[in-house]
Amino acid sequence: MKPATWRADLVAGAVVAVLLIPQSLAYAMLAGLPAQVGLYASLLPLLAYAALGSSPVLGLGPVAVLALMIAQALAGLPASVGAEAGALVLAAEVGLLLAAAALLRLDALASLLSVPALRGFENGATLMIAASQLPVLLGSAAAGFTLPDLAASALHGGWGLRSAAWGAAAVALLLLARRAGSRLLMRLAPLALLVAAMALSALTPAGRGVAQVGALPALSLPLGLPPLQGALWWQLLPSAALVALMAFVSSLAVSESLAQRRGEKLLPAAELRGLAAANLVASLTGGMPVAGSFSRSILLHEAGAHSRWALVFVAVFMALAMALLAGPLAHLPKPVLAATIVVAVLGGFSLQPYREAWRYAPAEGLLMAAVSVTVLAWSVGAALALGVAGSVALLIQRTARPHVARIGRVPGTHHFRNVERFAVECRPEVVGLRIDESLVFTNARGLADVVLAHVREHRAQVGAPQRVLLLMAPVNHIDVSGLVALQELHAALAAEGLRLEFSEVKGPVLDRLRAVGWLERHDVSLYLSHHEGIQAGEQALRPSQADLDAPGQL
Amino acid sequence: MKPATWRADLVAGAVVAVLLIPQSLAYAMLAGLPAQVGLYASLLPLLAYAALGSSPVLGLGPVAVLALMIAQALAGLPASVGAEAGALVLAAEVGLLLAAAALLRLDALASLLSVPALRGFENGATLMIAASQLPVLLGSAAAGFTLPDLAASALHGGWGLRSAAWGAAAVALLLLARRAGSRLLMRLAPLALLVAAMALSALTPAGRGVAQVGALPALSLPLGLPPLQGALWWQLLPSAALVALMAFVSSLAVSESLAQRRGEKLLPAAELRGLAAANLVASLTGGMPVAGSFSRSILLHEAGAHSRWALVFVAVFMALAMALLAGPLAHLPKPVLAATIVVAVLGGFSLQPYREAWRYAPAEGLLMAAVSVTVLAWSVGAALALGVAGSVALLIQRTARPHVARIGRVPGTHHFRNVERFAVECRPEVVGLRIDESLVFTNARGLADVVLAHVREHRAQVGAPQRVLLLMAPVNHIDVSGLVALQELHAALAAEGLRLEFSEVKGPVLDRLRAVGWLERHDVSLYLSHHEGIQAGEQALRPSQADLDAPGQL
Repeated sequence: MKPATWRADLVAGAVVAVLLIPQSLAYAMLAGLPAQVGLYASLLPLLAYAALGSSPVLGLGPVAVLALMIAQALAGLPASVGAEAGALVLAAEVGLLLAAAALLRLDALASLLSVPALRGFENGATLMIAASQLPVLLGSAAAGFTLPDLAASALHGGWGLRSAAWGAAAVALLLLARRAGSRLLMRLAPLALLVAAMALSALTPAGRGVAQVGALPALSLPLGLPPLQGALWWQLLPSAALVALMAFVSSLAVSESLAQRRGEKLLPAAELRGLAAANLVASLTGGMPVAGSFSRSILLHEAGAHSRWALVFVAVFMALAMALLAGPLAHLPKPVLAATIVVAVLGGFSLQPYREAWRYAPAEGLLMAAVSVTVLAWSVGAALALGVAGSVALLIQRTARPHVARIGRVPGTHHFRNVERFAVECRPEVVGLRIDESLVFTNARGLADVVLAHVREHRAQVGAPQRVLLLMAPVNHIDVSGLVALQELHAALAAEGLRLEFSEVKGPVLDRLRAVGWLERHDVSLYLSHHEGIQAGEQALRPSQADLDAPGQL
Repeated sequence: MKPATWRADLVAGAVVAVLLIPQSLAYAMLAGLPAQVGLYASLLPLLAYAALGSSPVLGLGPVAVLALMIAQALAGLPASVGAEAGALVLAAEVGLLLAAAALLRLDALASLLSVPALRGFENGATLMIAASQLPVLLGSAAAGFTLPDLAASALHGGWGLRSAAWGAAAVALLLLARRAGSRLLMRLAPLALLVAAMALSALTPAGRGVAQVGALPALSLPLGLPPLQGALWWQLLPSAALVALMAFVSSLAVSESLAQRRGEKLLPAAELRGLAAANLVASLTGGMPVAGSFSRSILLHEAGAHSRWALVFVAVFMALAMALLAGPLAHLPKPVLAATIVVAVLGGFSLQPYREAWRYAPAEGLLMAAVSVTVLAWSVGAALALGVAGSVALLIQRTARPHVARIGRVPGTHHFRNVERFAVECRPEVVGLRIDESLVFTNARGLADVVLAHVREHRAQVGAPQRVLLLMAPVNHIDVSGLVALQELHAALAAEGLRLEFSEVKGPVLDRLRAVGWLERHDVSLYLSHHEGIQAGEQALRPSQADLDAPGQL
């Protein structure tokens, strides 16, 4: 590696460490954990990701949205289980789930969260995080992870004027640094504020009466297995699944967009591996679940990081910080940390995405807003469930009926085209239909309806049919719901005295139908080409032509 | 109406009422409600459905799966709120949600639950219902709505030998009646058993020491509004949403399949209206949430019901039963009711669907089993969330990359075909691609990747391009996630010095893109036909041909 590359990575590492130190402490506090847990989570997990991940600019470590999810997960634990033990189990489960996803090649699952669901969630979480830090900022004892809870508990607690002064001063200084226009100042401000606050609080009486981070145990990495209690693991599993999904989706979103900007190729599977390793290492070294941070990733990119060595340098600087901060950290006033969080997350909040989604597709804009409100009023789990269910519901609402075209033969050829758009020939005894998409649960229920409508049209325009021949070439997949829909179609056609037949079924689709003996069980004839299907019918059915006029048929 | 039709409807009504009386009492008990609530829910709601619904054979009333869901919802209420009040609020919310769905024409949402999700849920609920009735059957005090809870509480409670004797005898008699082979006997058995048990318990000392339904308040319909407490409504809302979804999906499944069998046309929107009205009426007349029962619907069909008058007759018979049962019902031993439930639901349980799904698509079979296990070990809410999320995940796993074909011109024509399957002409300066499906969140994330792969292929096989022209004719819809994917594709192409252009965009898709000024903002050219796009480019770009050799391009 060239010296220039080393130097660039070293500088980028230093720049990001300066931002990561205050953020890691603050997000640990946000998660309801001792501040040093944030430092532990920013050290060895980075090395694990650097070894197995693929992006050179993923700012791995504690992130705000995950911290909120961790806090909600740990709040449900019985008092006998320490929050730190819970965080270790959670990190272990997240790591194992991501490793399982990597093994099963489930990287496509990132699409599970549609853009409105993801953005609505992140925006809602941002507001919730800011709201949850307000009491700390103001020295109130109020606490809670939903707006109603917070509001209710705020009614009982009072203010701490001294805390509020610290908090207000810290917010003012951070905002001033942002406004100053100097990037360097803006980036240095959180760490400088932290150091100044520690000094002020340790050396003068200003910190008295204000909640402080407090005496820490020796700041050395606590190596060891997370507690192996079955009940605890079972209880945290659903939260771990949500945290794992969010960790993967949010990390991939930022690393993918940066990779496209940098002209690099990103391997989603490698990202899964890297994240899995990082979380497992976090669970073995006193940490908490980690993911890629949007702000720190952008910073790594802008500061000129070249390779994953930049991440290694970040870890080195974090180790240095741990050694230096051990003593003074105890004096750090919590309102200052809260101010860091509030200013950091609110910078990312914007109403713009709601407005844009609303203008393009009102229903999706509403879903985005509903997901945000659900985070605030309810829980992250309910919000994610609403996001997934709502996205599917909107998709189904638009695509509930599969596209099916009635087709006829282009005269003099073996080609078949839509009867509504081309001058084609149709034979009365057979309805030719082209299924234009895969038959899956989102559209399968409408199949029988659509096909029967085409049959009625054929009967009115061409004549009384005996068979319905489905051209299946565009069908790439039939899931169990699609198979049941075909079964119901078969029964509905049989009730009208019509045979169901397929032509040009794709290999993989055919293999699966054959594996369960579906075609034989339902006596469905199969043709290699649609043309052959139309012809074959002519010969095969000629003897039973009399059936056409049988009274049993419609 | 002909006398024959009247008579058929009257007979069918009587047959179904004989089954509905024991079921309504039992399912109310299963829901944790007084037995008479089941009777109330089987009277006026039926008339409401008959007035507004569309199926003549929907066996409306209390159903087992909903009863389990209601029980879980009510178990979470504070002790100060009576279960009956909670059930009324729940029914009101279910009615309002279904009415809203009817207004918004959301009947397509029935597809939200894929076949594996729905069957897995119903089978799991069936087992859970049977398990929850075992303690009642055996006179144990154990209770709970998950297997772990039940098992834990069973360790503390003992058996009641007398109750167990009642329960075992009832189960044995019901099974004997099933085995007897006579349909009439099988159908009459539950009611006959009920009457016999009431008589035995009231007139002899056999019922002593056994839990009985107990003295009822006057059996007259309690008309009135459900309690209007905001907090209670808010707390029950998520459960109501799940109950409403399940009520609609399960009712529609049975009414649709019977309609196809009967050659009738079913209107899903009318079903929504009918169910909404039935649940609203239930909430005003002391009932509980209702839906269409599978077993009773089949029975109505088989007993020869012709019109919705059959449902009216069922209601008349239920009113008669209410008047006659008022006194003796108090003496009915609960183990007998529990036996009715266990025998009724276990008749519907089968491992066959798991096996079939597993053979056809192992992943979907596993999902079905996982949903069932989640019902048993966790909650109905978690199971439904898993069902929806799992179905989408499997769909995404299969369809994460949109189908995009690289196309060229069929020599001498204006037609364009896949370069891999036809001998076609391609021009080096433009990559022609056909997007073969709608761009939605399930496939949108893969778009840039797929297009860039085609561009690389084109560069290797044809030459260095300047533009990428997407033929959008098969694209019926672009959702917000699809729009973001197009945006990212635009940025990724721009990073390689390539222009993005569209041809043959469908009207509705174009309208939406224009509404937000997307095309102008991204400077995307638009062509009416793909051929025109290829040609236009030739002329427009000729002056800038020099750009092709610019060093900035790959």
